[in-house]
Amino acid sequence: MMHFLSQMAFCSCRPNAVLLRPQPNRWASSSKSKDDSEVGHCTRVQRNVNMEGLRTGYLFPEIFKRESEHMQKKAHARLIRLGIGDTTLPIPDIITSAMAEHAYALSTIQGYKGYGAEQGNMDLRKAIAEKFYKDMGVEGHEIFVSDGAQSDISRLQMLLGSNVTVAIQDPSFPGYTDSSVIVGQAGKLEEESGKYGNIVYMNCGSENGFFPDLSTTPRTDIIFFCSPNNPTGNAASRQQLQQLVDFARINGSIIVYDSAYAAFISDESPRSIFEIPGAKEVAIEISSFSKFAGFTGVRLGWTVVPEELLYSNRFPVIKDYNRIVCTCFNGASNIAQAGGLACLSEDGYKAVTNVVNYYKENAKILVEAFASLGLKVYGGKNAPYIWVHFPGLSSWDVFNEILEKTDVVTVPGRGFGPGGEGYIRVSAFGHRENILEASMRLKKLFFLA
Amino acid sequence: MMHFLSQMAFCSCRPNAVLLRPQPNRWASSSKSKDDSEVGHCTRVQRNVNMEGLRTGYLFPEIFKRESEHMQKKAHARLIRLGIGDTTLPIPDIITSAMAEHAYALSTIQGYKGYGAEQGNMDLRKAIAEKFYKDMGVEGHEIFVSDGAQSDISRLQMLLGSNVTVAIQDPSFPGYTDSSVIVGQAGKLEEESGKYGNIVYMNCGSENGFFPDLSTTPRTDIIFFCSPNNPTGNAASRQQLQQLVDFARINGSIIVYDSAYAAFISDESPRSIFEIPGAKEVAIEISSFSKFAGFTGVRLGWTVVPEELLYSNRFPVIKDYNRIVCTCFNGASNIAQAGGLACLSEDGYKAVTNVVNYYKENAKILVEAFASLGLKVYGGKNAPYIWVHFPGLSSWDVFNEILEKTDVVTVPGRGFGPGGEGYIRVSAFGHRENILEASMRLKKLFFLA
Repeated sequence: MMHFLSQMAFCSCRPNAVLLRPQPNRWASSSKSKDDSEVGHCTRVQRNVNMEGLRTGYLFPEIFKRESEHMQKKAHARLIRLGIGDTTLPIPDIITSAMAEHAYALSTIQGYKGYGAEQGNMDLRKAIAEKFYKDMGVEGHEIFVSDGAQSDISRLQMLLGSNVTVAIQDPSFPGYTDSSVIVGQAGKLEEESGKYGNIVYMNCGSENGFFPDLSTTPRTDIIFFCSPNNPTGNAASRQQLQQLVDFARINGSIIVYDSAYAAFISDESPRSIFEIPGAKEVAIEISSFSKFAGFTGVRLGWTVVPEELLYSNRFPVIKDYNRIVCTCFNGASNIAQAGGLACLSEDGYKAVTNVVNYYKENAKILVEAFASLGLKVYGGKNAPYIWVHFPGLSSWDVFNEILEKTDVVTVPGRGFGPGGEGYIRVSAFGHRENILEASMRLKKLFFLA
Repeated sequence: MMHFLSQMAFCSCRPNAVLLRPQPNRWASSSKSKDDSEVGHCTRVQRNVNMEGLRTGYLFPEIFKRESEHMQKKAHARLIRLGIGDTTLPIPDIITSAMAEHAYALSTIQGYKGYGAEQGNMDLRKAIAEKFYKDMGVEGHEIFVSDGAQSDISRLQMLLGSNVTVAIQDPSFPGYTDSSVIVGQAGKLEEESGKYGNIVYMNCGSENGFFPDLSTTPRTDIIFFCSPNNPTGNAASRQQLQQLVDFARINGSIIVYDSAYAAFISDESPRSIFEIPGAKEVAIEISSFSKFAGFTGVRLGWTVVPEELLYSNRFPVIKDYNRIVCTCFNGASNIAQAGGLACLSEDGYKAVTNVVNYYKENAKILVEAFASLGLKVYGGKNAPYIWVHFPGLSSWDVFNEILEKTDVVTVPGRGFGPGGEGYIRVSAFGHRENILEASMRLKKLFFLA
């Protein structure tokens, strides 16, 4: 008999009902028994404490649950989903043809390609630099092509590790906070405030023009900043971004700038943080083809890490990020990359811009609908999101009432952080007839109320 | 003037030449100066200590460098690359057509799809369960479709966190060790042994039939185990895997089982850890379409997390992994997933199996070539890798000599860990004529030597 069989280090764990809420499934039912052989084996591996720190009840699954419950009560309702920010219009032919051709070519000896560079096809990296960062000094090798912004945020968190301090806009896309929790930067969740102890929340509400008061913001190593913002739809002005860059420079911070909605900007607001002088020494930019080209399902994005960005020991951040990309990722799908390259051709870019303009027209319609009701409406001009203020009301209550009475799904602002309370987010992604129909229903609801 | 402008917390960092080796680039040249304004701004963010702990010089870039140097000396040499394990044969038509059709459909109102489920298309998840885990009790919802095994390894590391102890086969694919270092599990690198202090190295050499001596292996929380193995090409037997599962059960460990090369198994060796009774309570399995279907550039893989796998507090691992996938990933490309589904159709499966058989024939040729020279040759039967023993020699020396004298690129075994010293890995991915040509050159080299 081998030595290990006699070690007698048998699993000594016992059901721990306190740690698991009662649930109608096998795990919970098994926890009634005290016999290990009956309840089944469990490992001696401790659950990651960071994972334990995550809020239960992720926003979008909760919305989906309420949506389903609503449909069970009202089976014949024609639901209009303006909740999750998901693109709905077909991708222009010129782009899907490029992807299809790339796929077919993979069946030929000449066209077959195996592993590409982890950092992405250099032609695509250069095309991104040329199209989005012209005259900003960003070069192809500073662009890391990826499968999307959400993945890049977590790769950046792996890069940064647990010992950095972070500031996050409030409200904001949940991915920043949740990934901070997962890597151990966030500290404890304070149930009452809904805030994590070690995260600096930068309030961005209507009272401060959706830009944080930097004079009262403590220094952190990292500042997550999204513009045009999800969920508020607000794009920071050039002057504001200059303030942000100055703030980061003075504090020696790194800005992680999310420009995934830059294509929706209609005014003079910067489309990249690198339009601001001095930004290359203090900022990383995450961006995406998802909303710009309808690639939410195709999956393609990029992250810019400038050569000039240095850690306190002067080690270049780009070198470590390159290592992360090579170790924790193996490149975006070559078919998606072929599509990305087609988006940046002259005709491809025109075609996707038309689609973006369609969504912007949708946003205008929704803004007008809410404004006509006398509500304070933000966003919509530089982003596909409309942020509607219901001062003093619970955003989940507003969400519920709109769903119940109009069969329109929105997102309660509270889901984006404590600062989103009193607001709802309405997405402008949708077919025009649905946008018009939703606007009509909403107008009726409020006139009747 | 805003408050923050008067904080005077200016970046005080100074060039630190000790931390950066002299390099012919701007960073190093700037370090000669002592004037901050001249050397450029640096942040006050400390470099992640885990990233500092990574070995410098990643294996494959080093090989590529030596390859380039060789080609500079011998510009007319016809290089044959049997180094990186990258597929070379076209993907069967039936599969690329499915991907092309999916791409075209994205241009239609009916066929357009935005975000899919982060966990993957349920049809594909079910098809994977049916094709690879039939009669093993693995169901579709336990399968998480991904962009590939390398990404999944790092997502698993995020799941597990820094506080788990890990054991890794020696030699092994560098991704396990490197991702352990990045999340902070590994401890310090001991330069002399080439081992990290907190990692348990399970020696798998010819002397123990490439299976670790579990009687002397200390308990760890996590056991990374790859079969068929990269680089040794060895597939563990049913009896060995039963021992491994028993060992994990007794120790309360979790096995992270990498079966990316399972399609290459020719004998009765299990193709999944879940063929072993009791494995569902102690194992996670990572697998991939990369080598099975030539998807190295298309990017598609999956990870199985069984419902029965519980942390010590009985919390199901699958729930946390689901959360990781939803937070740190947004699903594999829908076009790649359409290709995956086509691979699992009857005709698609036949077609990709033919390609795998072609590579297996290549492997046979290479095994025979090395064996005919009187060398001890392992692998090749159940894997696309041949592991050749040169007892007492440095694997980098053998690599260099083969490259220099035959223009054939291999991989020095040392690159896979200390246990790989004295071996080289030869990849069987390639066109037949190149495999035959390489075999001929190798035979000549050794006969002449």
